[in-house]
Amino acid sequence: MQIARSVCSGESGVAIITLTTDFGLRDSHVGAMKGVIWSIAPQAQVVDITHLITPQNIQEGAQILRRAAPYYPAGTIHVAVVDPGVGTARRPIAGRLGDHYVVGPDNGIFTALLEYHESLGNPVEFVHLTRSQYWRAQVSFVFHGRDIFAPVAAHLANGVSLEALGDPITDVVRLVFARPLPIPNGLRGEVTHIDHFGNIYTNVMRTDIGGRAVSEVRLAGCTISEFVNTFGERLPGTLVSLFGSSEHLLVCEVNGNAARRLGVKLGEPVDVILAQS
Amino acid sequence: MQIARSVCSGESGVAIITLTTDFGLRDSHVGAMKGVIWSIAPQAQVVDITHLITPQNIQEGAQILRRAAPYYPAGTIHVAVVDPGVGTARRPIAGRLGDHYVVGPDNGIFTALLEYHESLGNPVEFVHLTRSQYWRAQVSFVFHGRDIFAPVAAHLANGVSLEALGDPITDVVRLVFARPLPIPNGLRGEVTHIDHFGNIYTNVMRTDIGGRAVSEVRLAGCTISEFVNTFGERLPGTLVSLFGSSEHLLVCEVNGNAARRLGVKLGEPVDVILAQS
Amino acid sequence: MQIARSVCSGESGVAIITLTTDFGLRDSHVGAMKGVIWSIAPQAQVVDITHLITPQNIQEGAQILRRAAPYYPAGTIHVAVVDPGVGTARRPIAGRLGDHYVVGPDNGIFTALLEYHESLGNPVEFVHLTRSQYWRAQVSFVFHGRDIFAPVAAHLANGVSLEALGDPITDVVRLVFARPLPIPNGLRGEVTHIDHFGNIYTNVMRTDIGGRAVSEVRLAGCTISEFVNTFGERLPGTLVSLFGSSEHLLVCEVNGNAARRLGVKLGEPVDVILAQS
Repeated sequence: MQIARSVCSGESGVAIITLTTDFGLRDSHVGAMKGVIWSIAPQAQVVDITHLITPQNIQEGAQILRRAAPYYPAGTIHVAVVDPGVGTARRPIAGRLGDHYVVGPDNGIFTALLEYHESLGNPVEFVHLTRSQYWRAQVSFVFHGRDIFAPVAAHLANGVSLEALGDPITDVVRLVFARPLPIPNGLRGEVTHIDHFGNIYTNVMRTDIGGRAVSEVRLAGCTISEFVNTFGERLPGTLVSLFGSSEHLLVCEVNGNAARRLGVKLGEPVDVILAQS
Repeated sequence: MQIARSVCSGESGVAIITLTTDFGLRDSHVGAMKGVIWSIAPQAQVVDITHLITPQNIQEGAQILRRAAPYYPAGTIHVAVVDPGVGTARRPIAGRLGDHYVVGPDNGIFTALLEYHESLGNPVEFVHLTRSQYWRAQVSFVFHGRDIFAPVAAHLANGVSLEALGDPITDVVRLVFARPLPIPNGLRGEVTHIDHFGNIYTNVMRTDIGGRAVSEVRLAGCTISEFVNTFGERLPGTLVSLFGSSEHLLVCEVNGNAARRLGVKLGEPVDVILAQS
Repeated sequence: MQIARSVCSGESGVAIITLTTDFGLRDSHVGAMKGVIWSIAPQAQVVDITHLITPQNIQEGAQILRRAAPYYPAGTIHVAVVDPGVGTARRPIAGRLGDHYVVGPDNGIFTALLEYHESLGNPVEFVHLTRSQYWRAQVSFVFHGRDIFAPVAAHLANGVSLEALGDPITDVVRLVFARPLPIPNGLRGEVTHIDHFGNIYTNVMRTDIGGRAVSEVRLAGCTISEFVNTFGERLPGTLVSLFGSSEHLLVCEVNGNAARRLGVKLGEPVDVILAQS
């Protein structure tokens, strides 16, 4: 218990709880979750990753969480609630991924972060949340974020051990993320995310092209031949491709909105043509 | 003073100040309020309930505040600023509702939270904020959130007593919320809120139907006969009704947007037909 | 070092870091920055001014920052990242403006706040961030917010001195803000901002009219003759002009959206006719 507490709050004694949901910013849901957390763990630092995951889009939530969570210090507790199966047979779970914790529904939302920790060889473990003494007394059928996940995260922040919260499980649900396939002279990937700027994210990673140069990127009937390190290397309005801050290949319009200009949709194919070595 | 301080900051020594406004998220207003609070009470935990209340919609602000505030720990200070009458004769007020505090304009924004505390038999008291030594030195005609309410909340967090802030009043403005009316075989309520998911909230509460079963819900020319406990009990795209996490009757589309599909507006009538017992 | 620390964290021992960006609220960028900050300075209080600056609009970012930052306590660190030149020759900088700190790109984003401190006679100084030991080990070409500015702000919060972070510079980039020009019987300014309510901000300040009365405001082919102290002095739907909480002349519709009603665009001329004295 003492050991768990020192892990949870890092060296600083501050426990951080992050929230990633599709609840939006207009309603009372996020505010209610924070109230529940602070009623149990008033010293916790609570931070919003985002509450604007596309409603019910578990895949998107998984990707955003994986891109933000690794930057947090040891002991951080990540609560993710994109939960179309709330109140059904889907299990509530919590886990330890390396020196971070996760809390949320067992629907694949932690897949990308889990695979990241596995790729680093970090230990991972999960429990099925079954100990209702760590939940709110009344559990709604439709808001486990408030009634199960928020209080469980707060108890973790207070030093309750993962093992105390439920029974170990090894069969958590995993999403399958499409990977790029080889094509003549390159790779065929797909559009996985459109960001706030209209930058188009693909599932082609820097490691997928093994140090070879990108000669062209083709999507939505358009060929982008300007491959750059950063936006400011070309004039505003130019379509460019580059590796983004999360090492994904992006297609962007300098100072503009590439997704709107190209009319691109999630899942659309993207062909990456590599220079002949 | 010592006693007040211990109430304000709860057992943990952390004072929480929540903010509920219609200021939006693009401007400097919310940031300015937080700066004012921390200039006076640097130890306060400040949290956004929402800043996306529909502009000037006091009724909506009152409902969102009532749904989030009760989850916060004793001593929490709730600042709510939806304030079309700023700078006019409408009074600035603060109050104690049970073991929580409220600060804002006297225009009814606290009505729903006040009625909640009254229904629990909690003591309630209000003061007209008249002691300008607890305000910013210059008070703008148009931004009492920054110049009166933020500093007053910060002084409450520092342990200043409610009584020190102004003169007791017992005639605060109250909104009147429409209640459902009996119809043959059921109740007629109305649409009171559309949430981020497009779920349609009504003013029919679980307690209004006294344990009877809902057989049909009718609104916008549509009859919903699927009454469920939670979304995942039906296929995506199905229209269902259920009791939400705040015990209101909702009409929802599973994994979809019911309000958009039905073209529903605030205030529209909703007929709830109850099973014959 | 000890002295710097006591400045940074104010009298309270709490260091505040504010964030102003165009990153939006849907992606992982803001969450990643906060994780980086807390990994270095877990005790820091991190607060969002806004992440909804219009993409790449440095001028707007500069104005919002200037309107919010002065309300923060001594020692606050303001990180501003509207950064179309990221990864190019534009310098990363940090500065001390009076008893506040700023961190961000050298593209003019701090101009308005800098001019404010200069107008008060406060000391100002800047450094070119060159000491990479205070950055993340890997610096992306496209996300200096995460890799340079967040860690530098966190080290400032920990008490590292400005001087340790880079070399002094005196030639930071400054934006030029249009000022009102004299016309017969008044001033011609321009529209500089549309806020969340649709209120139209102009660059005409209260100090520009030297205590004279405003008799008419003309913009977008419309003449507004109602000059008021606050919204509630006129009936809903009335177009009025008034001085806002930041002392700019505004044109507003009482309980409505003036910008939408008048179809106003940024940069449009605004004529302010003053009463003959």
